[in-house]
Amino acid sequence: MSEILYDRVAIIGVGLLGGSVALACKERGLVSSVCGFGRNPKRLEQAKANGILDDFSVDLKTALKDADLVVLATPIGLFRQITEQMTEHLKKGCVVTDLGSVKSSVIKDVEPLTLKAGVDFVPSHPIAGGENSGFESSKANLFEGKFCVVTPTKNTPLDAQTKICKLWESLGAKVEVRDPEEHDRLYAATSHLPHVLAYVLLNTLGEMKTKNSEEYLAKGGNGLIDVVRLGASEPGMWRDICLSNKEFILELLKDYQFALDSFKEKIAEGDGDFLHKAFLQANDHHEKVPKRND
Amino acid sequence: MSEILYDRVAIIGVGLLGGSVALACKERGLVSSVCGFGRNPKRLEQAKANGILDDFSVDLKTALKDADLVVLATPIGLFRQITEQMTEHLKKGCVVTDLGSVKSSVIKDVEPLTLKAGVDFVPSHPIAGGENSGFESSKANLFEGKFCVVTPTKNTPLDAQTKICKLWESLGAKVEVRDPEEHDRLYAATSHLPHVLAYVLLNTLGEMKTKNSEEYLAKGGNGLIDVVRLGASEPGMWRDICLSNKEFILELLKDYQFALDSFKEKIAEGDGDFLHKAFLQANDHHEKVPKRND
Repeated sequence: MSEILYDRVAIIGVGLLGGSVALACKERGLVSSVCGFGRNPKRLEQAKANGILDDFSVDLKTALKDADLVVLATPIGLFRQITEQMTEHLKKGCVVTDLGSVKSSVIKDVEPLTLKAGVDFVPSHPIAGGENSGFESSKANLFEGKFCVVTPTKNTPLDAQTKICKLWESLGAKVEVRDPEEHDRLYAATSHLPHVLAYVLLNTLGEMKTKNSEEYLAKGGNGLIDVVRLGASEPGMWRDICLSNKEFILELLKDYQFALDSFKEKIAEGDGDFLHKAFLQANDHHEKVPKRND
Repeated sequence: MSEILYDRVAIIGVGLLGGSVALACKERGLVSSVCGFGRNPKRLEQAKANGILDDFSVDLKTALKDADLVVLATPIGLFRQITEQMTEHLKKGCVVTDLGSVKSSVIKDVEPLTLKAGVDFVPSHPIAGGENSGFESSKANLFEGKFCVVTPTKNTPLDAQTKICKLWESLGAKVEVRDPEEHDRLYAATSHLPHVLAYVLLNTLGEMKTKNSEEYLAKGGNGLIDVVRLGASEPGMWRDICLSNKEFILELLKDYQFALDSFKEKIAEGDGDFLHKAFLQANDHHEKVPKRND
C-alpha cells in the first residue's frame, strides 16, 4: 500500500487527463477521495459510475471543499477564469497543480491568483494523451513510463514542488524539472509544430478542388494515416495551445517554412544529389527519435 | 492449390517489395520458380538462403532466361537503364510489370523499350511497404488487403492486363485500374507530400541551432514519432519519386504552403475562432482517413 500524499483531490475538468489522474491516484492509494468539477452533471455522473470519481459537483465551492490538491485539467484557455472563481474557495494550505501543455502563459494566468489566495502553485505537464479525449479514454496506467515536466518558478516552495514530483513518480512518470520557457520551446518543437503540420495537411487534402478529391483522404495508406493522426486531437485544446505558445510556434513555423521552401526549390530544379543527401540526413535524425510508447 | 499463372519469374531488384512478391508467389503456388537479379551476389545468396529466391544471377541475360514474368523492383530511377539492358534478353511473349510508386514517368521510360522489344508491359503499383527496406523485411502476406493500382496505357493488351490483375488479386490485393496521371496526382497527395513533410520536419528539428536542440528529437512523444515515421524511408527510392512525380508534388506543395502560411497568420493574429474552426474541419477530414492496415 502506498502512502497517502493528499487526502482529498479536486479534479477541475474531467476529461482524458483529469480522469486518468483520478483513476491512477485511486488505484495506487495515493489519495483518500476524488471529487470532480465540470459543467455537465450527466457526464460527471457517468464518470462517477465508471469509478473515476468518488463524488462531483457543478459548483466550484462544493467541489473545492476540503481539497488538499486541486488539479487544473480543463483546456488551458479556461485556467485564468476558473482560478479567479476558485480563489475564495481554496482550502488554506492546499496545493494547485495543472496538466497544461504550455507553461509560461499558464504561470502568467494562474500564479498571481494563487499567490494572492496564499496557496502554492506547482505547474506540471504530463506528456500523455494524444488524439483521444473524454474521460471514457482514461487509463490508470496512462502516465507509466511517460515524461512529466514540472516547471517551478521563483515563487514555488520547494516542499510543494517535491510533493508534486513524488505524486507523478508514484503514478509511474519520469519527472523532469525544467525552466518554463525551455519547456515551451521544446514542446513547440516536439508536439505543437507536428500538430499544426498535421492539421494543415488534413485541411489541404480535404479541400482540394480537383477531380476525385474525395479520394485523397479515403485512399491514404499507412504513411498518411500516421502523419495525420494528430489531426483528430481536440480542437479547443489545440486552439488554446496555439494561442498560448504563439511565440515559439511561430518561430519554429518560420524555420519549417524556410526548409520546406528550399526543399521545393530543389525538387523543381531536379537536384537529385541534394534530395538524396537531405533524405539521408533525415534518416540519421530519425535514429534519434524514440520508439512508440503506448 | 492455386493455378500457376507464370512459370518462371525474374525479380529485378530484390528488396522489400521484390522479395515480398517472390515469397507471396511461391507460397501461393502461383509460379514455378523465382530468379533474382541484383548487383550484390552476397545479398542475393542470403535471399536464396532465406527461401525468397530459387536462384539468382548478377548477369541480366542469365536472370531473364526463360522468364515469363519480369518484375521491375529497383528504385524507379534505374528502370530506363535496366530495361534498355534487358530488351535483347527478354523471352518472346513474356510480360514485364513494375512496382513503382510513380506511373507516368515510368511508362515514358519503359514502354517505348518494351514495345520495341515486342513484349507487353503492364504498369502496376502495390500500395505496401512503408519505411522498411531490404529483403529481410519481406513478407508473403505484405499485399493482403492492400490496394494495388494497375495503370494500363493504350498499348497495354487486355489479356496481359487481366493476367497481372489476377496475379495481384491472388496475392490478396484489392486491384484498382486507373489512368496513370490520375494515379500520380492521387499518390502525390496521399503519399509523396506526407513523405516530404516528414523529411523536412526531421531536418528542421535535427538542425536547430538553439540550446538543448539535441533533445528536440530525443524527447519526441507519440505525436512526433508518428509524424516523422516516414522519414526513415529509403533515400534513393524517395529521391527518384520526387524527381519522377515532380509536377504533381510541386502543385500540392504550393497548396500546402499557402494553407500553412494562412494558418501561421491566424496564429500570429491570435484568431482563436479561425483556429478552432480549422481544427474542427481537420477532425471532420480525419474521419475520412482509414484506420491503419498492417
